[in-house]
Amino acid sequence: MRTGYLGPEGTFSHEALLAAGLPEGEVDAVPLASIHDVVVAVQSGEVRRGIVPIENALEGAVTATLDALTFDAPDVVLTGELVLAVHHLLLARDAQPLDGLEVIVSHPQPLAQCARTLRTLAPQATPVVATSTAQAVRDVMAEGGARAAIGTAAAARVYGAHVLAEGLEDDPSNVTRFVWLARAGDGEAGPPAPVGAPARTSLVFHGDGDGRAGWLVRCLSEFAFRGVNLTKIQSRPLRSALGHYLFHLDLDGRADDPDVVAALAGLSTHCETLRILGSYAVAAATIRAGHGGAHTT
Amino acid sequence: MRTGYLGPEGTFSHEALLAAGLPEGEVDAVPLASIHDVVVAVQSGEVRRGIVPIENALEGAVTATLDALTFDAPDVVLTGELVLAVHHLLLARDAQPLDGLEVIVSHPQPLAQCARTLRTLAPQATPVVATSTAQAVRDVMAEGGARAAIGTAAAARVYGAHVLAEGLEDDPSNVTRFVWLARAGDGEAGPPAPVGAPARTSLVFHGDGDGRAGWLVRCLSEFAFRGVNLTKIQSRPLRSALGHYLFHLDLDGRADDPDVVAALAGLSTHCETLRILGSYAVAAATIRAGHGGAHTT
Repeated sequence: MRTGYLGPEGTFSHEALLAAGLPEGEVDAVPLASIHDVVVAVQSGEVRRGIVPIENALEGAVTATLDALTFDAPDVVLTGELVLAVHHLLLARDAQPLDGLEVIVSHPQPLAQCARTLRTLAPQATPVVATSTAQAVRDVMAEGGARAAIGTAAAARVYGAHVLAEGLEDDPSNVTRFVWLARAGDGEAGPPAPVGAPARTSLVFHGDGDGRAGWLVRCLSEFAFRGVNLTKIQSRPLRSALGHYLFHLDLDGRADDPDVVAALAGLSTHCETLRILGSYAVAAATIRAGHGGAHTT
Repeated sequence: MRTGYLGPEGTFSHEALLAAGLPEGEVDAVPLASIHDVVVAVQSGEVRRGIVPIENALEGAVTATLDALTFDAPDVVLTGELVLAVHHLLLARDAQPLDGLEVIVSHPQPLAQCARTLRTLAPQATPVVATSTAQAVRDVMAEGGARAAIGTAAAARVYGAHVLAEGLEDDPSNVTRFVWLARAGDGEAGPPAPVGAPARTSLVFHGDGDGRAGWLVRCLSEFAFRGVNLTKIQSRPLRSALGHYLFHLDLDGRADDPDVVAALAGLSTHCETLRILGSYAVAAATIRAGHGGAHTT
Protein backbone atom coordinates (compact mmCIF):
# COMPACT_ATOMS: atom_id res chain seq x y z
CA MET A 1 0.00 0.00 0.00
CA ARG A 2 1.41 3.38 -1.02
CA THR A 3 2.33 5.14 2.24
CA GLY A 4 3.51 8.76 2.27
CA TYR A 5 6.04 10.13 4.74
CA LEU A 6 8.33 13.16 5.10
CA GLY A 7 11.47 12.19 3.17
CA PRO A 8 14.17 11.75 2.16
CA GLU A 9 14.92 8.25 3.42
CA GLY A 10 16.36 8.27 6.91
CA THR A 11 14.21 10.97 8.54
CA PHE A 12 12.43 10.40 11.86
CA SER A 13 9.19 9.91 9.92
CA HIS A 14 10.89 7.17 7.90
CA GLU A 15 12.18 5.63 11.12
CA ALA A 16 8.63 5.66 12.55
CA LEU A 17 7.31 3.96 9.42
CA LEU A 18 10.03 1.27 9.57
CA ALA A 19 9.50 0.76 13.30
CA ALA A 20 5.73 0.37 13.04
CA GLY A 21 5.96 -3.38 12.52
CA LEU A 22 3.75 -3.48 9.44
CA PRO A 23 3.97 -6.76 7.48
CA GLU A 24 6.99 -6.99 5.15
CA GLY A 25 5.97 -6.23 1.57
CA GLU A 26 2.75 -4.50 2.61
CA VAL A 27 4.32 -1.02 2.61
CA ASP A 28 5.23 0.88 -0.55
CA ALA A 29 7.00 3.83 1.14
CA VAL A 30 6.69 7.14 -0.75
CA PRO A 31 9.04 9.93 0.44
CA LEU A 32 7.53 13.41 0.03
CA ALA A 33 9.05 16.89 0.33
CA SER A 34 7.08 18.28 3.30
CA ILE A 35 4.55 17.36 5.97
CA HIS A 36 2.01 19.42 4.05
CA ASP A 37 2.68 17.32 0.94
CA VAL A 38 2.06 14.10 2.88
CA VAL A 39 -1.32 15.26 4.19
CA VAL A 40 -2.39 16.57 0.77
CA ALA A 41 -1.24 13.37 -0.97
CA VAL A 42 -3.61 11.38 1.25
CA GLN A 43 -6.41 13.84 0.48
CA SER A 44 -5.84 13.56 -3.29
CA GLY A 45 -5.42 9.78 -3.26
CA GLU A 46 -1.83 9.97 -4.56
CA VAL A 47 -1.01 7.78 -1.54
CA ARG A 48 -3.56 5.66 0.30
CA ARG A 49 -2.02 6.11 3.75
CA GLY A 50 0.32 8.60 5.42
CA ILE A 51 2.30 8.91 8.62
CA VAL A 52 3.09 12.37 10.08
CA PRO A 53 4.42 13.69 13.41
CA ILE A 54 1.74 15.54 15.41
CA GLU A 55 3.38 16.28 18.79
CA ASN A 56 6.80 16.21 20.46
CA ALA A 57 7.32 16.06 24.23
CA LEU A 58 9.76 19.02 24.19
CA GLU A 59 8.70 21.05 21.17
CA GLY A 60 4.93 20.65 21.44
CA ALA A 61 2.46 20.53 18.58
CA VAL A 62 3.67 20.01 15.01
CA THR A 63 1.70 22.91 13.61
CA ALA A 64 2.32 21.99 9.96
CA THR A 65 0.35 18.78 10.55
CA LEU A 66 -2.55 20.44 12.40
CA ASP A 67 -2.88 23.23 9.82
CA ALA A 68 -2.67 20.95 6.78
CA LEU A 69 -5.40 18.71 8.24
CA THR A 70 -7.60 21.71 9.04
CA PHE A 71 -7.18 23.85 5.95
CA ASP A 72 -6.21 21.51 3.11
CA ALA A 73 -7.51 18.01 3.81
CA PRO A 74 -11.26 17.92 4.53
CA ASP A 75 -11.56 14.17 3.82
CA VAL A 76 -8.51 12.92 5.74
CA VAL A 77 -8.96 11.16 9.08
CA LEU A 78 -6.63 9.86 11.80
CA THR A 79 -6.68 6.07 11.96
CA GLY A 80 -3.97 5.34 14.52
CA GLU A 81 -1.03 6.68 16.50
CA LEU A 82 2.55 5.63 17.22
CA VAL A 83 4.90 7.06 19.86
CA LEU A 84 8.60 6.93 18.93
CA ALA A 85 11.51 7.62 21.28
CA VAL A 86 13.70 10.38 19.83
CA HIS A 87 17.06 8.68 19.62
CA HIS A 88 20.01 10.53 18.09
CA LEU A 89 23.11 8.79 16.69
CA LEU A 90 26.48 10.23 15.68
CA LEU A 91 27.20 9.01 12.14
CA ALA A 92 30.29 9.27 9.95
CA ARG A 93 31.71 7.73 6.77
CA ASP A 94 34.63 6.13 8.63
CA ALA A 95 35.36 4.95 12.17
CA GLN A 96 37.35 7.55 14.10
CA PRO A 97 37.90 8.86 17.64
CA LEU A 98 35.23 11.33 18.79
CA ASP A 99 37.68 13.85 20.21
CA GLY A 100 39.22 14.33 16.75
CA LEU A 101 35.95 15.39 15.09
CA GLU A 102 36.12 18.88 13.59
CA VAL A 103 32.55 19.36 12.33
CA ILE A 104 29.16 18.01 13.41
CA VAL A 105 26.34 18.60 10.91
CA SER A 106 22.60 18.38 11.55
CA HIS A 107 19.26 20.13 11.59
CA PRO A 108 19.17 22.92 14.24
CA GLN A 109 16.73 20.97 16.45
CA PRO A 110 18.90 17.86 17.00
CA LEU A 111 21.98 20.09 17.38
CA ALA A 112 20.18 21.86 20.24
CA GLN A 113 18.84 18.63 21.74
CA CYS A 114 22.35 17.08 21.90
CA ALA A 115 24.40 20.19 22.71
CA ARG A 116 25.39 19.25 26.26
CA THR A 117 26.33 15.66 25.41
CA LEU A 118 28.37 16.74 22.39
CA ARG A 119 30.33 19.32 24.39
CA THR A 120 31.58 16.39 26.51
CA LEU A 121 32.01 13.77 23.78
CA ALA A 122 33.44 15.91 20.97
CA PRO A 123 34.62 19.19 22.50
CA GLN A 124 36.65 20.22 19.41
CA ALA A 125 33.77 19.97 16.94
CA THR A 126 32.01 22.97 15.40
CA PRO A 127 28.25 22.62 14.80
CA VAL A 128 27.11 23.21 11.20
CA VAL A 129 23.47 23.48 10.12
CA ALA A 130 21.79 21.32 7.44
CA THR A 131 18.22 21.39 6.14
CA SER A 132 17.38 17.94 7.61
CA THR A 133 19.09 15.13 9.51
CA ALA A 134 18.91 12.97 6.41
CA GLN A 135 20.62 15.67 4.33
CA ALA A 136 23.31 15.98 7.02
CA VAL A 137 24.07 12.25 6.76
CA ARG A 138 24.23 12.48 2.95
CA ASP A 139 26.68 15.40 3.21
CA VAL A 140 28.93 13.54 5.64
CA MET A 141 28.90 10.40 3.48
CA ALA A 142 29.91 12.49 0.45
CA GLU A 143 32.69 14.49 2.12
CA GLY A 144 34.13 12.08 4.70
CA GLY A 145 37.05 13.24 6.87
CA ALA A 146 36.69 14.44 10.46
CA ARG A 147 32.99 15.20 9.97
CA ALA A 148 30.01 13.53 11.59
CA ALA A 149 26.24 13.98 11.39
CA ILE A 150 23.54 13.64 14.02
CA GLY A 151 21.02 11.31 12.47
CA THR A 152 18.62 8.42 12.91
CA ALA A 153 19.11 4.67 13.01
CA ALA A 154 17.17 4.57 9.75
CA ALA A 155 19.65 6.97 8.11
CA ALA A 156 22.61 4.89 9.31
CA ARG A 157 21.10 1.84 7.62
CA VAL A 158 19.92 3.56 4.41
CA TYR A 159 23.19 5.42 3.72
CA GLY A 160 25.58 2.83 5.18
CA ALA A 161 27.03 5.23 7.75
CA HIS A 162 29.32 4.21 10.58
CA VAL A 163 27.74 4.66 14.05
CA LEU A 164 30.31 6.53 16.20
CA ALA A 165 28.00 6.93 19.21
CA GLU A 166 24.34 6.63 20.12
CA GLY A 167 22.02 8.07 22.75
CA LEU A 168 23.35 11.61 22.12
CA GLU A 169 20.13 13.27 23.33
CA ASP A 170 20.53 15.35 26.50
CA ASP A 171 17.02 14.38 27.61
CA PRO A 172 16.49 10.63 27.09
CA SER A 173 12.73 10.87 27.80
CA ASN A 174 11.99 12.82 24.61
CA VAL A 175 9.36 11.18 22.38
CA THR A 176 7.43 12.12 19.25
CA ARG A 177 3.84 11.09 18.62
CA PHE A 178 2.98 10.21 15.01
CA VAL A 179 -0.47 9.65 13.53
CA TRP A 180 -1.61 7.52 10.61
CA LEU A 181 -3.75 9.20 7.98
CA ALA A 182 -6.22 7.81 5.44
CA ARG A 183 -9.25 9.05 3.56
CA ALA A 184 -12.51 8.86 5.52
CA GLY A 185 -14.33 5.60 4.78
CA ASP A 186 -11.23 3.72 3.59
CA GLY A 187 -11.34 1.26 6.49
CA GLU A 188 -8.58 -0.94 5.10
CA ALA A 189 -5.98 1.84 4.95
CA GLY A 190 -5.53 2.13 8.71
CA PRO A 191 -3.07 0.08 10.76
CA PRO A 192 -4.57 -2.97 12.51
CA ALA A 193 -6.02 -1.75 15.85
CA PRO A 194 -4.89 -3.72 18.92
CA VAL A 195 -7.88 -5.63 20.28
CA GLY A 196 -9.23 -4.12 23.50
CA ALA A 197 -6.87 -1.12 23.43
CA PRO A 198 -8.28 2.09 24.90
CA ALA A 199 -9.41 4.60 22.28
CA ARG A 200 -8.73 8.27 21.68
CA THR A 201 -10.68 10.77 19.57
CA SER A 202 -9.24 13.89 17.93
CA LEU A 203 -11.38 16.81 16.83
CA VAL A 204 -11.13 20.46 15.83
CA PHE A 205 -13.66 23.26 16.34
CA HIS A 206 -14.12 26.99 16.20
CA GLY A 207 -16.90 29.42 16.98
CA ASP A 208 -17.71 33.04 16.30
CA GLY A 209 -18.42 33.40 20.02
CA ASP A 210 -14.74 33.11 20.92
CA GLY A 211 -14.49 36.81 21.79
CA ARG A 212 -17.07 36.54 24.58
CA ALA A 213 -16.25 35.77 28.21
CA GLY A 214 -16.82 32.12 29.00
CA TRP A 215 -17.23 30.81 25.45
CA LEU A 216 -14.36 28.33 25.67
CA VAL A 217 -15.48 27.25 29.14
CA ARG A 218 -18.97 26.49 27.82
CA CYS A 219 -17.42 24.40 25.03
CA LEU A 220 -15.17 22.41 27.37
CA SER A 221 -17.89 22.04 30.01
CA GLU A 222 -19.79 19.78 27.62
CA PHE A 223 -17.05 17.21 28.18
CA ALA A 224 -16.51 17.87 31.90
CA PHE A 225 -20.22 17.50 32.77
CA ARG A 226 -20.20 14.03 31.22
CA GLY A 227 -16.91 12.88 32.73
CA VAL A 228 -15.11 12.79 29.36
CA ASN A 229 -11.39 13.36 29.92
CA LEU A 230 -9.48 15.71 27.62
CA THR A 231 -5.85 14.71 27.01
CA LYS A 232 -4.78 17.64 24.81
CA ILE A 233 -5.92 21.11 23.87
CA GLN A 234 -4.06 23.16 21.29
CA SER A 235 -5.10 26.50 19.86
CA ARG A 236 -4.16 27.44 16.30
CA PRO A 237 -4.78 30.74 14.54
CA LEU A 238 -7.92 30.83 12.39
CA ARG A 239 -5.84 32.80 9.85
CA SER A 240 -8.43 35.57 9.60
CA ALA A 241 -7.26 38.01 12.30
CA LEU A 242 -5.11 37.89 15.42
CA GLY A 243 -7.14 36.75 18.42
CA HIS A 244 -9.37 34.15 16.72
CA TYR A 245 -8.51 30.50 17.05
CA LEU A 246 -9.31 26.96 16.10
CA PHE A 247 -9.04 24.46 18.94
CA HIS A 248 -7.65 20.96 18.53
CA LEU A 249 -8.82 18.56 21.26
CA ASP A 250 -7.95 14.96 22.06
CA LEU A 251 -10.20 13.03 24.41
CA ASP A 252 -10.36 9.56 25.96
CA GLY A 253 -12.95 7.37 24.24
CA ARG A 254 -14.53 6.81 20.84
CA ALA A 255 -16.70 9.30 18.99
CA ASP A 256 -19.58 6.79 19.19
CA ASP A 257 -19.36 6.23 22.97
CA PRO A 258 -22.67 7.50 24.43
CA ASP A 259 -21.07 10.13 26.70
CA VAL A 260 -18.88 11.39 23.87
CA VAL A 261 -21.84 11.52 21.45
CA ALA A 262 -23.76 13.67 23.95
CA ALA A 263 -20.76 15.93 24.60
CA LEU A 264 -20.17 16.47 20.87
CA ALA A 265 -23.86 17.29 20.34
CA GLY A 266 -23.58 19.88 23.10
CA LEU A 267 -20.33 21.28 21.73
CA SER A 268 -21.83 21.67 18.26
CA THR A 269 -24.42 24.13 19.63
CA HIS A 270 -21.59 26.59 20.49
CA CYS A 271 -19.58 26.17 17.29
CA GLU A 272 -19.58 27.26 13.68
CA THR A 273 -17.44 24.27 12.73
CA LEU A 274 -16.87 20.95 14.48
CA ARG A 275 -14.97 18.18 12.73
CA ILE A 276 -14.15 14.77 14.14
CA LEU A 277 -10.66 13.92 12.89
CA GLY A 278 -10.99 10.27 13.94
CA SER A 279 -11.16 7.70 16.73
CA TYR A 280 -8.27 5.25 17.04
CA ALA A 281 -6.41 2.96 19.45
CA VAL A 282 -4.06 4.65 21.93
CA ALA A 283 -0.43 3.58 21.36
CA ALA A 284 0.33 0.85 23.89
CA ALA A 285 4.01 1.72 24.39
CA THR A 286 6.85 3.91 23.18
CA ILE A 287 8.80 2.37 20.31
CA ARG A 288 12.60 2.52 20.27
CA ALA A 289 14.32 2.11 16.92
CA GLY A 290 17.47 -0.03 17.15
CA HIS A 291 20.57 1.18 15.29
CA GLY A 292 21.33 -2.26 13.88
CA GLY A 293 18.09 -2.21 12.00
CA ALA A 294 16.23 -4.43 14.41
CA HIS A 295 13.18 -2.76 15.84
CA THR A 296 10.85 -3.53 18.71
CA THR A 297 7.10 -3.05 18.45
CA MET B 1 18.70 52.01 27.52
CA ARG B 2 20.21 48.68 26.41
CA THR B 3 17.44 46.89 24.49
CA GLY B 4 17.91 43.31 23.27
CA TYR B 5 16.37 41.96 20.06
CA LEU B 6 16.82 39.02 17.68
CA GLY B 7 19.57 40.14 15.34
CA PRO B 8 21.33 40.72 13.07
CA GLU B 9 20.22 44.20 12.06
CA GLY B 10 17.32 44.15 9.62
CA THR B 11 15.23 41.33 11.11
CA PHE B 12 11.52 41.74 11.82
CA SER B 13 12.38 42.18 15.50
CA HIS B 14 14.71 45.03 14.57
CA GLU B 15 11.98 46.54 12.42
CA ALA B 16 9.54 46.33 15.36
CA LEU B 17 12.07 48.07 17.61
CA LEU B 18 12.64 50.85 15.05
CA ALA B 19 8.90 51.25 14.44
CA ALA B 20 8.00 51.50 18.14
CA GLY B 21 8.43 55.26 18.18
CA LEU B 22 10.69 55.36 21.22
CA PRO B 23 12.50 58.67 21.71
CA GLU B 24 15.61 59.10 19.52
CA GLY B 25 18.75 58.41 21.55
CA GLU B 26 16.87 56.52 24.25
CA VAL B 27 17.48 53.10 22.65
CA ASP B 28 20.83 51.31 22.68
CA ALA B 29 19.86 48.40 20.41
CA VAL B 30 21.69 45.13 21.18
CA PRO B 31 21.36 42.40 18.51
CA LEU B 32 21.43 38.88 19.99
CA ALA B 33 21.72 35.46 18.37
CA SER B 34 18.35 33.91 19.30
CA ILE B 35 15.01 34.67 20.92
CA HIS B 36 16.14 32.57 23.87
CA ASP B 37 19.22 34.78 24.23
CA VAL B 38 17.07 37.93 24.32
CA VAL B 39 14.86 36.60 27.11
CA VAL B 40 17.84 35.33 29.13
CA ALA B 41 19.74 38.62 28.66
CA VAL B 42 16.82 40.47 30.29
CA GLN B 43 16.78 37.92 33.12
CA SER B 44 20.55 38.31 33.73
CA GLY B 45 20.51 42.11 33.42
CA GLU B 46 22.83 42.07 30.38
CA VAL B 47 20.14 44.22 28.76
CA ARG B 48 17.54 46.20 30.67
CA ARG B 49 14.73 45.72 28.15
CA GLY B 50 13.93 43.27 25.35
CA ILE B 51 11.49 42.95 22.48
CA VAL B 52 10.45 39.50 21.20
CA PRO B 53 7.73 38.13 18.89
CA ILE B 54 5.09 36.13 20.78
CA GLU B 55 2.38 35.37 18.19
CA ASN B 56 1.82 35.52 14.43
CA ALA B 57 -1.60 35.59 12.79
CA LEU B 58 -0.73 32.74 10.38
CA GLU B 59 1.90 30.73 12.24
CA GLY B 60 0.49 30.99 15.78
CA ALA B 61 2.46 31.09 19.01
CA VAL B 62 6.20 31.75 18.94
CA THR B 63 7.03 28.82 21.16
CA ALA B 64 10.68 29.87 21.71
CA THR B 65 9.42 32.98 23.50
CA LEU B 66 6.84 31.17 25.64
CA ASP B 67 9.29 28.44 26.66
CA ALA B 68 12.17 30.80 27.47
CA LEU B 69 9.88 32.89 29.68
CA THR B 70 8.55 29.80 31.44
CA PHE B 71 11.70 27.75 31.92
CA ASP B 72 14.63 30.20 31.94
CA ALA B 73 13.44 33.64 33.05
CA PRO B 74 11.61 33.56 36.41
CA ASP B 75 12.07 37.31 37.00
CA VAL B 76 11.12 38.62 33.56
CA VAL B 77 7.74 40.28 33.01
CA LEU B 78 5.79 41.60 30.01
CA THR B 79 5.50 45.36 30.10
CA GLY B 80 3.86 46.14 26.76
CA GLU B 81 2.89 44.84 23.34
CA LEU B 82 3.25 46.01 19.74
CA VAL B 83 1.50 44.61 16.66
CA LEU B 84 3.49 44.91 13.42
CA ALA B 85 2.16 44.28 9.92
CA VAL B 86 4.28 41.63 8.19
CA HIS B 87 5.43 43.43 5.12
CA HIS B 88 7.86 41.73 2.72
CA LEU B 89 10.06 43.62 0.22
CA LEU B 90 12.09 42.31 -2.70
CA LEU B 91 15.64 43.64 -2.30
CA ALA B 92 18.67 43.54 -4.59
CA ARG B 93 22.08 45.21 -4.96
CA ASP B 94 21.14 46.85 -8.27
CA ALA B 95 17.95 47.98 -9.98
CA GLN B 96 16.80 45.40 -12.54
CA PRO B 97 13.63 44.00 -14.15
CA LEU B 98 11.81 41.42 -12.02
CA ASP B 99 11.27 38.95 -14.82
CA GLY B 100 15.03 38.62 -15.27
CA LEU B 101 15.67 37.47 -11.69
CA GLU B 102 17.27 34.03 -11.48
CA VAL B 103 17.41 33.46 -7.72
CA ILE B 104 15.32 34.66 -4.76
CA VAL B 105 16.89 34.04 -1.36
CA SER B 106 15.15 34.12 2.02
CA HIS B 107 14.16 32.26 5.16
CA PRO B 108 11.70 29.41 4.37
CA GLN B 109 8.79 31.22 6.06
CA PRO B 110 8.81 34.39 3.91
CA LEU B 111 9.45 32.27 0.80
CA ALA B 112 6.24 30.37 1.62
CA GLN B 113 4.30 33.52 2.52
CA CYS B 114 5.16 35.17 -0.83
CA ALA B 115 5.09 32.11 -3.11
CA ARG B 116 1.97 32.99 -5.08
CA THR B 117 2.95 36.64 -5.65
CA LEU B 118 6.48 35.70 -6.72
CA ARG B 119 5.24 33.14 -9.23
CA THR B 120 3.51 36.04 -10.99
CA LEU B 121 6.16 38.76 -10.53
CA ALA B 122 9.32 36.73 -11.09
CA PRO B 123 8.33 33.45 -12.75
CA GLN B 124 11.91 32.57 -13.78
CA ALA B 125 13.42 32.78 -10.29
CA THR B 126 14.44 29.76 -8.22
CA PRO B 127 13.87 30.00 -4.44
CA VAL B 128 16.98 29.46 -2.29
CA VAL B 129 16.93 29.09 1.50
CA ALA B 130 18.90 31.26 3.95
CA THR B 131 19.09 31.09 7.76
CA SER B 132 17.30 34.46 8.19
CA THR B 133 15.90 37.27 6.07
CA ALA B 134 18.74 39.53 7.22
CA GLN B 135 21.34 36.94 6.16
CA ALA B 136 19.59 36.66 2.77
CA VAL B 137 19.95 40.41 2.22
CA ARG B 138 23.63 40.27 3.20
CA ASP B 139 24.22 37.43 0.72
CA VAL B 140 22.51 39.32 -2.09
CA MET B 141 24.46 42.50 -1.34
CA ALA B 142 27.72 40.51 -1.44
CA GLU B 143 27.03 38.58 -4.64
CA GLY B 144 24.92 40.96 -6.72
CA GLY B 145 23.77 39.87 -10.19
CA ALA B 146 20.28 38.57 -10.97
CA ARG B 147 19.67 37.70 -7.31
CA ALA B 148 17.16 39.22 -4.91
CA ALA B 149 16.23 38.65 -1.28
CA ILE B 150 12.90 38.84 0.51
CA GLY B 151 13.54 41.12 3.45
CA THR B 152 12.29 43.91 5.65
CA ALA B 153 12.20 47.67 5.25
CA ALA B 154 14.74 47.78 8.08
CA ALA B 155 17.13 45.52 6.15
CA ALA B 156 16.81 47.67 3.02
CA ARG B 157 17.87 50.69 5.06
CA VAL B 158 20.63 49.01 7.10
CA TYR B 159 22.33 47.28 4.15
CA GLY B 160 21.56 49.92 1.51
CA ALA B 161 19.65 47.51 -0.72
CA HIS B 162 17.60 48.57 -3.72
CA VAL B 163 13.84 47.96 -3.29
CA LEU B 164 12.63 46.14 -6.44
CA ALA B 165 9.07 45.58 -5.13
CA GLU B 166 7.10 45.71 -1.92
CA GLY B 167 3.94 44.14 -0.55
CA LEU B 168 5.05 40.68 -1.70
CA GLU B 169 2.98 38.87 0.94
CA ASP B 170 0.15 36.74 -0.46
CA ASP B 171 -2.00 37.56 2.60
CA PRO B 172 -1.79 41.29 3.36
CA SER B 173 -3.58 40.88 6.72
CA ASN B 174 -0.68 38.98 8.32
CA VAL B 175 0.59 40.59 11.53
CA THR B 176 3.02 39.65 14.30
CA ARG B 177 2.50 40.55 17.94
CA PHE B 178 5.65 41.51 19.87
CA VAL B 179 5.99 41.97 23.63
CA TRP B 180 8.35 44.16 25.65
CA LEU B 181 10.29 42.45 28.44
CA ALA B 182 11.90 43.83 31.59
CA ARG B 183 12.85 42.52 35.02
CA ALA B 184 9.98 42.55 37.55
CA GLY B 185 10.01 45.73 39.57
CA ASP B 186 12.00 47.76 37.03
CA GLY B 187 9.14 50.15 36.33
CA GLU B 188 11.20 52.50 34.20
CA ALA B 189 12.24 49.81 31.69
CA GLY B 190 8.80 49.44 30.12
CA PRO B 191 7.50 51.54 27.24
CA PRO B 192 5.25 54.46 28.25
CA ALA B 193 1.69 53.11 28.57
CA PRO B 194 -0.97 55.05 26.63
CA VAL B 195 -3.27 56.79 29.14
CA GLY B 196 -6.67 55.16 29.36
CA ALA B 197 -5.77 52.27 27.04
CA PRO B 198 -7.47 48.96 27.81
CA ALA B 199 -5.22 46.49 29.62
CA ARG B 200 -4.31 42.86 29.06
CA THR B 201 -2.80 40.35 31.50
CA SER B 202 -0.68 37.33 30.52
CA LEU B 203 -0.19 34.34 32.82
CA VAL B 204 0.97 30.74 32.78
CA PHE B 205 -0.18 27.84 34.96
CA HIS B 206 -0.04 24.10 35.33
CA GLY B 207 -1.55 21.54 37.68
CA ASP B 208 -1.01 17.91 38.55
CA GLY B 209 -4.76 17.42 38.09
CA ASP B 210 -4.49 17.82 34.33
CA GLY B 211 -5.10 14.12 33.73
CA ARG B 212 -8.55 14.23 35.34
CA ALA B 213 -11.80 14.92 33.48
CA GLY B 214 -12.85 18.51 33.88
CA TRP B 215 -9.66 19.92 35.39
CA LEU B 216 -9.09 22.50 32.67
CA VAL B 217 -12.77 23.46 32.71
CA ARG B 218 -12.60 24.10 36.46
CA CYS B 219 -9.55 26.33 35.88
CA LEU B 220 -11.17 28.35 33.09
CA SER B 221 -14.52 28.54 34.89
CA GLU B 222 -12.91 30.79 37.49
CA PHE B 223 -12.71 33.44 34.77
CA ALA B 224 -16.06 32.71 33.10
CA PHE B 225 -18.02 32.91 36.40
CA ARG B 226 -16.67 36.42 36.93
CA GLY B 227 -17.14 37.65 33.37
CA VAL B 228 -13.41 37.90 32.69
CA ASN B 229 -12.80 37.46 28.96
CA LEU B 230 -9.93 35.23 27.77
CA THR B 231 -8.30 36.38 24.53
CA LYS B 232 -5.77 33.56 24.08
CA ILE B 233 -5.09 30.07 25.37
CA GLN B 234 -2.01 28.18 24.31
CA SER B 235 -0.82 24.83 25.65
CA ARG B 236 2.90 24.02 25.79
CA PRO B 237 4.49 20.74 26.83
CA LEU B 238 5.59 20.58 30.47
CA ARG B 239 8.73 18.76 29.22
CA SER B 240 8.27 15.92 31.69
CA ALA B 241 6.18 13.46 29.67
CA LEU B 242 3.84 13.55 26.69
CA GLY B 243 0.32 14.55 27.74
CA HIS B 244 1.15 17.10 30.45
CA TYR B 245 0.96 20.78 29.63
CA LEU B 246 1.50 24.31 30.80
CA PHE B 247 -1.22 26.74 29.74
CA HIS B 248 -0.53 30.32 28.65
CA LEU B 249 -3.58 32.58 29.00
CA ASP B 250 -4.20 36.19 28.02
CA LEU B 251 -7.21 37.97 29.51
CA ASP B 252 -8.84 41.40 29.28
CA GLY B 253 -8.06 43.54 32.32
CA ARG B 254 -5.31 44.13 34.87
CA ALA B 255 -4.13 41.61 37.44
CA ASP B 256 -5.27 43.99 40.20
CA ASP B 257 -8.82 44.46 38.85
CA PRO B 258 -11.17 43.02 41.54
CA ASP B 259 -12.77 40.40 39.25
CA VAL B 260 -9.36 39.30 37.98
CA VAL B 261 -7.95 39.12 41.52
CA ALA B 262 -10.84 36.85 42.53
CA ALA B 263 -10.47 34.67 39.43
CA LEU B 264 -6.71 34.26 39.97
CA ALA B 265 -7.29 33.32 43.63
CA GLY B 266 -9.76 30.67 42.46
CA LEU B 267 -7.41 29.42 39.75
CA SER B 268 -4.54 29.06 42.20
CA THR B 269 -6.53 26.47 44.19
CA HIS B 270 -6.42 24.10 41.16
CA CYS B 271 -2.78 24.68 40.23
CA GLU B 272 0.71 23.70 41.30
CA THR B 273 2.16 26.79 39.64
CA LEU B 274 0.54 30.07 38.64
CA ARG B 275 2.68 32.95 37.44
CA ILE B 276 1.47 36.37 36.33
CA LEU B 277 3.67 37.37 33.41
CA GLY B 278 2.46 40.97 33.50
CA SER B 279 -0.35 43.46 32.89
CA TYR B 280 0.14 46.00 30.10
CA ALA B 281 -1.67 48.30 27.67
CA VAL B 282 -3.27 46.64 24.63
CA ALA B 283 -1.69 47.85 21.37
CA ALA B 284 -3.95 50.54 19.95
CA ALA B 285 -3.27 49.79 16.29
CA THR B 286 -1.22 47.74 13.88
CA ILE B 287 2.07 49.41 12.94
CA ARG B 288 3.24 49.42 9.33
CA ALA B 289 6.94 49.98 8.72
CA GLY B 290 7.58 52.20 5.72
CA HIS B 291 10.35 51.20 3.30
CA GLY B 292 11.79 54.68 3.17
CA GLY B 293 12.54 54.51 6.85
CA ALA B 294 9.60 56.64 7.93
CA HIS B 295 7.35 54.81 10.33
CA THR B 296 3.91 55.43 11.72
CA THR B 297 3.06 54.79 15.35
